[in-house]
Amino acid sequence: MQASITTVTGGVTAAQGFTASGVYAGIKKVRKPDLALVVSERPGPIAGTFTNNRVVAAPVILDRQHLRQGVGQAILVNSGNANACTGKAGMANAREMAQLTASALGIEVHKVFVCSTGVIGQPLPIERVRAALPAAMANLKSKGGRAAAQAILTTDLRPKEAALRSQLDGVPITVGGMAKGSGMIHPDMATMLAFITTDAAIEQPTLQQALQQAVDHSFNCISVDGDTSTNDTVLCLANGQAGGPPLRPGSVELATFQRMLDRVCQELALSICRDGEGVTKVVKIAVTQARSPIDAKRVARTVATSNLVKTALFGEDANWGRIMGAVGRAGVAIDPNRVAVWFDRAQIVKEGVGLGATAEKAITKVIKRKEFTITIDLGQGTGEAHVWTTDLSYDYVRINASYRS
Amino acid sequence: MQASITTVTGGVTAAQGFTASGVYAGIKKVRKPDLALVVSERPGPIAGTFTNNRVVAAPVILDRQHLRQGVGQAILVNSGNANACTGKAGMANAREMAQLTASALGIEVHKVFVCSTGVIGQPLPIERVRAALPAAMANLKSKGGRAAAQAILTTDLRPKEAALRSQLDGVPITVGGMAKGSGMIHPDMATMLAFITTDAAIEQPTLQQALQQAVDHSFNCISVDGDTSTNDTVLCLANGQAGGPPLRPGSVELATFQRMLDRVCQELALSICRDGEGVTKVVKIAVTQARSPIDAKRVARTVATSNLVKTALFGEDANWGRIMGAVGRAGVAIDPNRVAVWFDRAQIVKEGVGLGATAEKAITKVIKRKEFTITIDLGQGTGEAHVWTTDLSYDYVRINASYRS
Repeated sequence: MQASITTVTGGVTAAQGFTASGVYAGIKKVRKPDLALVVSERPGPIAGTFTNNRVVAAPVILDRQHLRQGVGQAILVNSGNANACTGKAGMANAREMAQLTASALGIEVHKVFVCSTGVIGQPLPIERVRAALPAAMANLKSKGGRAAAQAILTTDLRPKEAALRSQLDGVPITVGGMAKGSGMIHPDMATMLAFITTDAAIEQPTLQQALQQAVDHSFNCISVDGDTSTNDTVLCLANGQAGGPPLRPGSVELATFQRMLDRVCQELALSICRDGEGVTKVVKIAVTQARSPIDAKRVARTVATSNLVKTALFGEDANWGRIMGAVGRAGVAIDPNRVAVWFDRAQIVKEGVGLGATAEKAITKVIKRKEFTITIDLGQGTGEAHVWTTDLSYDYVRINASYRS
Repeated sequence: MQASITTVTGGVTAAQGFTASGVYAGIKKVRKPDLALVVSERPGPIAGTFTNNRVVAAPVILDRQHLRQGVGQAILVNSGNANACTGKAGMANAREMAQLTASALGIEVHKVFVCSTGVIGQPLPIERVRAALPAAMANLKSKGGRAAAQAILTTDLRPKEAALRSQLDGVPITVGGMAKGSGMIHPDMATMLAFITTDAAIEQPTLQQALQQAVDHSFNCISVDGDTSTNDTVLCLANGQAGGPPLRPGSVELATFQRMLDRVCQELALSICRDGEGVTKVVKIAVTQARSPIDAKRVARTVATSNLVKTALFGEDANWGRIMGAVGRAGVAIDPNRVAVWFDRAQIVKEGVGLGATAEKAITKVIKRKEFTITIDLGQGTGEAHVWTTDLSYDYVRINASYRS
């Protein structure tokens, strides 16, 4: 029997022993919170995944160094400035953010992780971080998750939080988190950041593996324009304060923990899709019967990132020919004569050919839904993959044409 | 001394011995010409390059078969319907288009090439092609280039023609052409088609090689979203009617012919960029000092197809951080600390770091130009490549959200 998992409130402070705050430091032009602090009572193992971009922001470089020790206790995040392409000064500023936090908490600097998100290439006003840190410290609360979730936003409309609880071997364990960024909406400037906390007892290598899997099935399934930012970061800090022995690899308890982590990450990832001006639809692109999972992923990504598919979704134009065009140029050895396409349960393509006016009417109904699935069956093997995408709207252009002004 | 090359009028009928026409067959919903016919007095070698898409339209399959013989005399093109994803009926229709033309002209069917462009997945109304072909035949004129250039358009705003003339070994040779489609504007539904005619005497393998090179340096440099259509086709027909011996490989005359062909293709390619609602800018992305030409091309394409870069161009926001972000995620082993970026002659990035407010002011002036160059120097080697791109505007979304309605 699978352990039951329940939804709880509290986001990044839902788990025991975590406090958080969000304050205004003056980094953003508008007067909105722009400095978030998350602190655990006790240090614990921390896992992280970062952008694959060759151009990485200073805080990413620093966090990768700190992650080698594998222990975390605090995370300081600023929004409004990405501290990327800022050279040696940027690196010094990232280090100072960590040092200031370590001094304030009286902990070693390698237990502090820092993140930045916002405009690339502008010097980070470190003096404002320095001036605001005491307020961030003073505001730390065990119900501060929401304030922190607010302070990490850039162009996001809504804070993004999720938290789940379950009994693992009689011990109540909580996994909670917050995220910011808008994947396919404005994925570059609006870096994707996510912070997960848990009171589970778990060793660092196990935690790192669990996080990697959860990220692959969530955040990595929505990064659909491939516009990986210079700052993308997911951190997961486990302080063990729920008690009990560490989760053993291969155990039922670890499997439940993995399900909780997967679901928290998926909820945060989907809330990234749903948020953001400009999005009117979230569509799952599911590819089945590919020769391999890699082929399936490639086809799903090519369809999901096609501007022609995305504008047709916005226009609610059931223009399935654009899907076929994208499938064909994915760089995968498909056989066009085996391809079938469904919009939810309405089939529109069979053996590579359109099914005509009645079928078009049926998919035209589906495309008006706010969330639905486009299934592309390649008829070649057993490989499967899916990617969530959104439509491409006027507002996407408006937001991105004027992001900095 | 290089032979002088002059611009002439006439497009696809500028060269000797070519006639063309454009008529309304009723394939388009709106009453605009939708059937174009180009005929050479004499058969001659024909070269072709086609889409790399795995999903190919019926006429592309047929043309590839006919191209094996390497001889052409007529090209029939319909707009308003792509005849793609139309199964066996579509293949039969493409064949009938060729047969009807061959019968009307009294020539062998393999000398006829057919192209279609428009919506994917709708049955081609072949009876309308059949009914309109006599009118297309009756209208064939040695000044019919413009009428044909009109009849191949879909969402294009303007017909696209180019023609050049030069003396090759005392013989006046003309290379002319027409194109349709809008590369990065609406690249999938609005297939890219180009037809080049010449009265030069040239053997088929030499012509094929020359065309491939010209296409690589022109149309393949603007297909920037990678949204290769199911129908993309470039054909070049050489009837030899200018007289003189065939152009010899390695000769000065062939080099001049190549320059003419390159320039005709480039003019047509750039007119594709400039045309199309929604485009307010054409920007050349030039990558220099890459480790290899392949690396250079990959970086240029990644920057040129980034929606974030393209929306910033539309907004005239000199958001160079998005360029750095795109460079970093191109999948090329760049060294961020060596990257330099210029907008025309104004430098904004040196050794991976922004040059500050004065430099930003300078590039903000450049970005307001209608055409300019962004140069990205990777500081690693001697590889170079360039791609022309356009901005991503509200009108792009509008056109593509409602293409079929």
